[in-house]
Amino acid sequence: MADLEIISYPELEFSHRFIDNGPESIESELDEILAAPDTAAKIVEAEREGVDAVVIDCLGDPGMKAGREATKIPVIGAGETSMHVAAMLGHRFSIITTLDRVCHMNENQAKIYGVHEKFASCRAVNTPVLDLEQSTQTLIRDLVDAGELAIREDGAHVLLFGCTGMSKVAIAVEEGLKNRGFDVPVVEPLSTAIHFAYMILQLGYRYSGITYPLPPQKTIVGYSFPEIRKTK
Amino acid sequence: MADLEIISYPELEFSHRFIDNGPESIESELDEILAAPDTAAKIVEAEREGVDAVVIDCLGDPGMKAGREATKIPVIGAGETSMHVAAMLGHRFSIITTLDRVCHMNENQAKIYGVHEKFASCRAVNTPVLDLEQSTQTLIRDLVDAGELAIREDGAHVLLFGCTGMSKVAIAVEEGLKNRGFDVPVVEPLSTAIHFAYMILQLGYRYSGITYPLPPQKTIVGYSFPEIRKTK
Amino acid sequence: MADLEIISYPELEFSHRFIDNGPESIESELDEILAAPDTAAKIVEAEREGVDAVVIDCLGDPGMKAGREATKIPVIGAGETSMHVAAMLGHRFSIITTLDRVCHMNENQAKIYGVHEKFASCRAVNTPVLDLEQSTQTLIRDLVDAGELAIREDGAHVLLFGCTGMSKVAIAVEEGLKNRGFDVPVVEPLSTAIHFAYMILQLGYRYSGITYPLPPQKTIVGYSFPEIRKTK
Amino acid sequence: MADLEIISYPELEFSHRFIDNGPESIESELDEILAAPDTAAKIVEAEREGVDAVVIDCLGDPGMKAGREATKIPVIGAGETSMHVAAMLGHRFSIITTLDRVCHMNENQAKIYGVHEKFASCRAVNTPVLDLEQSTQTLIRDLVDAGELAIREDGAHVLLFGCTGMSKVAIAVEEGLKNRGFDVPVVEPLSTAIHFAYMILQLGYRYSGITYPLPPQKTIVGYSFPEIRKTK
Amino acid sequence: MADLEIISYPELEFSHRFIDNGPESIESELDEILAAPDTAAKIVEAEREGVDAVVIDCLGDPGMKAGREATKIPVIGAGETSMHVAAMLGHRFSIITTLDRVCHMNENQAKIYGVHEKFASCRAVNTPVLDLEQSTQTLIRDLVDAGELAIREDGAHVLLFGCTGMSKVAIAVEEGLKNRGFDVPVVEPLSTAIHFAYMILQLGYRYSGITYPLPPQKTIVGYSFPEIRKTK
Amino acid sequence: MADLEIISYPELEFSHRFIDNGPESIESELDEILAAPDTAAKIVEAEREGVDAVVIDCLGDPGMKAGREATKIPVIGAGETSMHVAAMLGHRFSIITTLDRVCHMNENQAKIYGVHEKFASCRAVNTPVLDLEQSTQTLIRDLVDAGELAIREDGAHVLLFGCTGMSKVAIAVEEGLKNRGFDVPVVEPLSTAIHFAYMILQLGYRYSGITYPLPPQKTIVGYSFPEIRKTK
Repeated sequence: MADLEIISYPELEFSHRFIDNGPESIESELDEILAAPDTAAKIVEAEREGVDAVVIDCLGDPGMKAGREATKIPVIGAGETSMHVAAMLGHRFSIITTLDRVCHMNENQAKIYGVHEKFASCRAVNTPVLDLEQSTQTLIRDLVDAGELAIREDGAHVLLFGCTGMSKVAIAVEEGLKNRGFDVPVVEPLSTAIHFAYMILQLGYRYSGITYPLPPQKTIVGYSFPEIRKTK
Repeated sequence: MADLEIISYPELEFSHRFIDNGPESIESELDEILAAPDTAAKIVEAEREGVDAVVIDCLGDPGMKAGREATKIPVIGAGETSMHVAAMLGHRFSIITTLDRVCHMNENQAKIYGVHEKFASCRAVNTPVLDLEQSTQTLIRDLVDAGELAIREDGAHVLLFGCTGMSKVAIAVEEGLKNRGFDVPVVEPLSTAIHFAYMILQLGYRYSGITYPLPPQKTIVGYSFPEIRKTK
Repeated sequence: MADLEIISYPELEFSHRFIDNGPESIESELDEILAAPDTAAKIVEAEREGVDAVVIDCLGDPGMKAGREATKIPVIGAGETSMHVAAMLGHRFSIITTLDRVCHMNENQAKIYGVHEKFASCRAVNTPVLDLEQSTQTLIRDLVDAGELAIREDGAHVLLFGCTGMSKVAIAVEEGLKNRGFDVPVVEPLSTAIHFAYMILQLGYRYSGITYPLPPQKTIVGYSFPEIRKTK
Repeated sequence: MADLEIISYPELEFSHRFIDNGPESIESELDEILAAPDTAAKIVEAEREGVDAVVIDCLGDPGMKAGREATKIPVIGAGETSMHVAAMLGHRFSIITTLDRVCHMNENQAKIYGVHEKFASCRAVNTPVLDLEQSTQTLIRDLVDAGELAIREDGAHVLLFGCTGMSKVAIAVEEGLKNRGFDVPVVEPLSTAIHFAYMILQLGYRYSGITYPLPPQKTIVGYSFPEIRKTK
Repeated sequence: MADLEIISYPELEFSHRFIDNGPESIESELDEILAAPDTAAKIVEAEREGVDAVVIDCLGDPGMKAGREATKIPVIGAGETSMHVAAMLGHRFSIITTLDRVCHMNENQAKIYGVHEKFASCRAVNTPVLDLEQSTQTLIRDLVDAGELAIREDGAHVLLFGCTGMSKVAIAVEEGLKNRGFDVPVVEPLSTAIHFAYMILQLGYRYSGITYPLPPQKTIVGYSFPEIRKTK
Repeated sequence: MADLEIISYPELEFSHRFIDNGPESIESELDEILAAPDTAAKIVEAEREGVDAVVIDCLGDPGMKAGREATKIPVIGAGETSMHVAAMLGHRFSIITTLDRVCHMNENQAKIYGVHEKFASCRAVNTPVLDLEQSTQTLIRDLVDAGELAIREDGAHVLLFGCTGMSKVAIAVEEGLKNRGFDVPVVEPLSTAIHFAYMILQLGYRYSGITYPLPPQKTIVGYSFPEIRKTK
């Protein structure tokens, strides 16, 4: 489990940007598609400003694939990355998340990302994203309860937070489960994605040009979408 | 194979609407996400105007899932519907489409839609959507060639057009393959989706409220998205 | 959910035929194979009499593939069709059916039809087919109970009746589940198959000649099987 | 590879019976369903006569599941058994068979039998069953050619004959492939099934009573089907 | 279910050999890898001494693949063989075994062996291998309990013992389940493997030379590994 | 693509250790099992000496799972890690490796690691591990040829080296493919695993205690295996 505070590579400089257009939080297919265009636009702008890699701070990875097409820099999805890391840490992983309604969306992601074989289940605490910060103790207890069910009933050996907004309680949830006798890692998607982005940069990898070729030039109406250059 | 001209149910009234905001054509992940928000908006408006069902005229089904969340009416995706119909018509189907770059996007759809077991392959004629109408004879020949390869090399028993803009040549492609000795149905996605929408209405079916629950009310910035009522 | 009574396309003329040879009802692998030969024979006769399409009134689809080989007309299986429609209506579907013993037979069908990814489970009310009409209220309650378990325990988002003999209670079961708070479509296989047959005719589709080629001419002993022409 | 002649367990007594009703050979879905009822009847009669186990002499396993329901004795399918044995002998197996048209039928069997992961491909020599004995040298050469393609193109490590009528050339085909540098076992389904039946009897195993429960008693019209007792 | 005592083919001569180097019992990944080298060495020695086939007496099949590479004789794994036999005896099988910790190891085997589609679950009685013989009655009751849960909760139609050390109670467990109303075969892996080895010898089959080619000659340090000849 | 030379985290101290007992190189199942015990022993010793994480320098990941059981420190397999990274970088990956004979071993790994959905193929240059350094130019050309075939024939969008001994030519192979018009990342497994180990340490993750519990204490004969403490 990771504590977001301690991310400190000497040579690493962070910037954080919110999308200007889109919903307050992402909890539905509709939220996903409304968040995606400006996320992609922000990724293109980031590349233009000289950013070396972008991390999308949402398990749903809105705009990730479009952002990869439109730039040459690594675009890291918190969902894709953390699902693969969770898949590596044990036999099967379960997602513990905010609302039941996003569970099948996460399962569809696992299918696309190719880790569905390792996907045990998804269980929700039924707290909307924007209420996550209201009662930390309740959130921790609910996540520990959901995690215990995932382990006992669904065969989870690893747990993955379904929302990057839960990052602060990762250590506490891992502790809570250990106190109940369950020795499982809890994967926090945002810090995982940030460290993964750093790793990809260190390795000099980029995403496949066959999977993510430059989008065809065409007229786009209704968006002030930045010009795509992908010049690297 | 179907001819779009002959769709004429006495009691059926068609309307056709283009999105106002988005790209000219859909040939990339970026095009998909830019087309989705206004497609979903148009679906909500259509319900408000009393439309009984909506068909999305694109194999990529942009906005389909969001549109189902946001309305009570059936929202039929040309991609989802035609892939399932193709899956039923024979042992395996291949998609013959415009550009190589969309093939893996279609394959990902097949995974989400649950018909990947029946997906043989995807082969492209490498003609952009907006050039499809330039030379009908060339298009027919290229599609017949792609179809023959899909049958011979990939084990296709059924062919599916990867773009609703190819609808006019479906009969000719089926004939062309028959002349080469291949007795395979060619599924045209747009007419398939329209007839399927009619069927769903006749049957009184709706999409699952567990998969597509009403999206949570929340502030949306940057879109003049219509108010969601889902009152049925 | 569909009410069989309301199927009324102006230009559509129905005929219904029972098989002469076979079991009273289909509830086992043995019943399936005893029902199949005469079903296929009746399909060949139907084509000869000028019928445009045949619907097999049994979820097990006995004789479906043989009937497709032996004729040129669309042969629609209630099982294959309704499983694909159920797959499209939501994330996963469960079958609620008569007897436990047919559940794994239905699951095998889902594997062959290529929709196993969408198959959540099968649950039985343990009422034989021929007793289905004895107590409608009991049947409805039992199906609602089975459906609730499928939703709660198995992750079903859509329900599919496992027997065409349940068609009359489809609306009541859907209502019963709604009253318990579950907003799920209930797919009735027979009406689904009839409307699907109409759709296929409207579209002019046929089943693949590679999957279902004309059977080789050969001596058949012990059956008064009609001569196969497949002349279209 | 096995030579059928050498099957000689001291305590084993063979009897061989043809079905009275059905097609001359099995090369289509129609042939399958016409062969199944009398095969099942013959299995019931065999049990009544004190036979200890039955082997179905056809890769398509017609009537196998019904025969298991209707009796207590092991009913061994040449297809099911030999596919599992082929799956065990190496990384992946291909079927080399009579006609292209049965290939997808065999693939569907592999899905039902649960060995599709090990199924590399199916390739046909395009010789009907009843012509198999015409030219042994041609048949051997064609099977070796098909096997070589399966190894080179499809990744086969093991070959399985798709027809029990090919048993006499198994050794020759294995030799032929060895001469071309391919060290692969050739599985002959009939002898495999006979030895497997013997093994099952020695082990005292029976097929699951949950998968294959006694069929419900019911009126059967048009067949002189023997009374089912399953009394063991 | 099989009783190991009754294995008596007139022409069959048994020898049994323990590994000299390795752990007392196999209950972990570490045990597996420590048992494998000497198992492979014993297999090579057995071939040199004229043994016709080797059975590995452990469900984990340590050294099986290496033993096949290093010899020409059939090397039968109790795990691989019994999983395939269990897969054939019914719709799905569950493993009932010693410790929870080996369950996912068995599931990984099922994936490699290509029978994961038929794998329902694994349930443990939580008795270490070396304690299996302490209380036979407790062991039987625990295995019957585990089997009942596998049937009721996980959809098992067949049960497979997860340890060859349980062979003596196979009949009693099958009886115990029958007394609770569950008519399921219990597969005992060791006797299954021995009979299977005999069958493979009778059939003259060998494992694929493409999957298991002779290992390259090379310097091996720290093992007194016998010289590999594979001369047959 | 990564250059191993440039791995230089200021706070990171490397040590490299060869196994004392085992084969010279790993190119067979036999080599794998002979390499595993001492690899696991070295991992235990490394933990005792205060090492924070171990990377296994071989795509086959010998001893990885046992090493995770026996220690508390992260044990990173070059194979598991690089397959997941390759899976993330594009739609599908192919392995280009030394010898054909290891290809199905790698495919089995992909099944166990849960990334088989993303595994396109494996192609070999047919150069033994110990000859890899003989002609760098030949090796580069052969790997580029194998990569091109994987892209053209098998649908690879990403390439993964199947041997950590190829690390020095990764940039050249990526360049060579770019010169032929293929814009694909080439994943080098050793540097990937090293950076991944660093990432896991930074994140504070450990492998699941349910998947990798401490092995039971037991007598081990024939190995001077270090005492296991796992005290963290």
